Amino acid sequence: MKKFFLVIAAMALGVSAMAQQSLMGGQTAKSPEINPDGTVTFRLIAPKARKVQLTGDVIPPISSQMGNIRMDMPATVDLVEKDGVWEYTTDVLEPELYSYVFKVDGVTTLDPSNIYMFRDVATWSNILIVTKDKGDKGDLYSVNKVPHGDVSKVWYDSPALGLNRRLTVYTPAGYDAPKNKTKYPVLYVLHGAGGDEDAWPNLGRAAQILDNLIAAGKVKPCIMVMPNGNPNTSAAPGEWSAGMYVTSMSGGAGFPPAKTGIPESFGDIMKYVESHYRVLTGPANTAICGLSMGGGHSYQTSLLNPGKFGYIGLFSAAVSVPSADNQAQYSEFQSKMKAMFNAKPKLYYIAIGETDFLYSANEGLRKYLDQNGFPYEYRETSGGHIWRNWRMYLTEFAQKAFK
Amino acid sequence: MKKFFLVIAAMALGVSAMAQQSLMGGQTAKSPEINPDGTVTFRLIAPKARKVQLTGDVIPPISSQMGNIRMDMPATVDLVEKDGVWEYTTDVLEPELYSYVFKVDGVTTLDPSNIYMFRDVATWSNILIVTKDKGDKGDLYSVNKVPHGDVSKVWYDSPALGLNRRLTVYTPAGYDAPKNKTKYPVLYVLHGAGGDEDAWPNLGRAAQILDNLIAAGKVKPCIMVMPNGNPNTSAAPGEWSAGMYVTSMSGGAGFPPAKTGIPESFGDIMKYVESHYRVLTGPANTAICGLSMGGGHSYQTSLLNPGKFGYIGLFSAAVSVPSADNQAQYSEFQSKMKAMFNAKPKLYYIAIGETDFLYSANEGLRKYLDQNGFPYEYRETSGGHIWRNWRMYLTEFAQKAFK
Repeated sequence: MKKFFLVIAAMALGVSAMAQQSLMGGQTAKSPEINPDGTVTFRLIAPKARKVQLTGDVIPPISSQMGNIRMDMPATVDLVEKDGVWEYTTDVLEPELYSYVFKVDGVTTLDPSNIYMFRDVATWSNILIVTKDKGDKGDLYSVNKVPHGDVSKVWYDSPALGLNRRLTVYTPAGYDAPKNKTKYPVLYVLHGAGGDEDAWPNLGRAAQILDNLIAAGKVKPCIMVMPNGNPNTSAAPGEWSAGMYVTSMSGGAGFPPAKTGIPESFGDIMKYVESHYRVLTGPANTAICGLSMGGGHSYQTSLLNPGKFGYIGLFSAAVSVPSADNQAQYSEFQSKMKAMFNAKPKLYYIAIGETDFLYSANEGLRKYLDQNGFPYEYRETSGGHIWRNWRMYLTEFAQKAFK
Repeated sequence: MKKFFLVIAAMALGVSAMAQQSLMGGQTAKSPEINPDGTVTFRLIAPKARKVQLTGDVIPPISSQMGNIRMDMPATVDLVEKDGVWEYTTDVLEPELYSYVFKVDGVTTLDPSNIYMFRDVATWSNILIVTKDKGDKGDLYSVNKVPHGDVSKVWYDSPALGLNRRLTVYTPAGYDAPKNKTKYPVLYVLHGAGGDEDAWPNLGRAAQILDNLIAAGKVKPCIMVMPNGNPNTSAAPGEWSAGMYVTSMSGGAGFPPAKTGIPESFGDIMKYVESHYRVLTGPANTAICGLSMGGGHSYQTSLLNPGKFGYIGLFSAAVSVPSADNQAQYSEFQSKMKAMFNAKPKLYYIAIGETDFLYSANEGLRKYLDQNGFPYEYRETSGGHIWRNWRMYLTEFAQKAFK
């Protein structure tokens, strides 16, 4: 009777799909399957397809050189068909969060057997997490049996941008306990071009990273604030009155230009946070970091606010140092940098992958800092301009903050 | 230079897909396109595919009869190919939120041109919203230029279930304004079998519905609480320590049985809400409603707590009335019903679609209520066991609550 009930319930739903096929005895493939030897097998049932491929970071990228820019291009592999089921098994995969999609006769297809998928700008990909041991990267990015912080989508007013804007706020486990009066330090975490306030909570696994590191005693319980870094929009696509548009990596996304930039309007975010949450203020309790464009925003915001941020993290950051040939611009930059470093931030952290296309831009910044005796910590990893690196940089930076 | 930068940035990303293809000059189809005449055109670029189909509620369902159960089966249409682009144009679509997927040579494929998609149990579908006029259903389910409430994923302890569990909470615009001391009524909104605490906020458009109705002065500003209704789990799939499993409509989802049920443990949810939010209590300020299984939970929870809920909403609810043949069970039920109606709830609302497979079960409940003189409001709509109806029932119920 129960099975009959479920079948009928499934049939009565508006949209047919995998769940119903599965309930009604249709075939489903096990995909992805993490094998005991550490390889991963992907499967797709597609008896009528002529070619099925897979692309993603579960297979090694193709390294190439474009002028003096080194980079990784995503590779594609063919799946092999047997009895209508297409299959591919990877090499042994290290603990990590991976992304992939299929291509079925040339059409990008999300794995119908894997309900886990995230959007990055205008691209959806399936994800999987490979974990071997407690504390490895896969474990760190997973939801574990630890106390969980709350994650809220809230709205703040930005007079500088003339917009009411959406913001993701993580408050650590216990923050909202009825009798808790504790104040917490604040970590601002900024996304890259085309991203939004959902980027760090989703592909960035920021809440999981903080939950796990706080539970392990490795990060001080803090409030983590993840703003939207596109100053001419209010929120992620579909989450504001612009409707259901397709977003892109070109910051404007077709909307009228912003009244000002994120660094110039960052005070509106801080004002909201400091008036709505129990926060500790001052540089010892205030950190800012970001990836790519958000690294650039962190760079500029810290320059505009000397002494405000005690911990500054630039992850694969879009940074530039003005040419000394342009006297006026260079000397303005120089005086801002001096003001910021005179306030003695406890940490100025620069991290980048060796094949990141922004590598030389960051090399330029480091050279400038070295020449001027401005102290910083530098972390160079393998790989390029990828989430794998940004999750790792956040993990490292968060452990260095507020200490 | 900017374009070059973007192209390189795209190439440097780990996973290839539409965004990058688009940046690099690859073709993208406009899909869905809402035409001026009110029809909608779907397109997919698939020059190598042999057959492309579309299924979803953008095309009329197939009505059928199975014994004495009437139901709607989702229909499928073929797209027509021209120069590698497959296309289908619907009839005129009324204002509504619609769901659809493609099938490419038999493989379920999400529309790569449409970044909007939601998961329902184990099924992902693309969505689109058709709006004609201010205040129509499409408008009501859209994010409009109105003040927005905050939506939070929080964790509460359920001693009755022995679990720390995830909960979605909507607080109305202005709730968190620094000097606001106002207390608010609470609306509990429960999902159906296989759903979770993300169901009502996503496909249910619950936050948009409340934002829009509160802004229009049609609903009293209230706190809306959307719990997880699977008592043997802690949270939506992937959001708790069980890892990345594939969920199903069979409540258990393969996990050990729960210590007790949602109705029996509902006090833990209310205790959390009443201790963590500024809430008005008592029946005049407390409403509960739910769809399908969640309608059953609302039915049972209100029965177990006579006088606690002033507004009770059963949407396509899984309800049953014990047979009078089973004397003991019937008389226990009878005394619970009497206790509940003796407390005079202001609203007992039953809503169902005429082709819902639970129609006769609800007919049985209405017959029982009529025979016993227990007052209720009844709303019958067209259609079956579908989100389209549940969004409408929530819209109606919320406007009747707290008045």
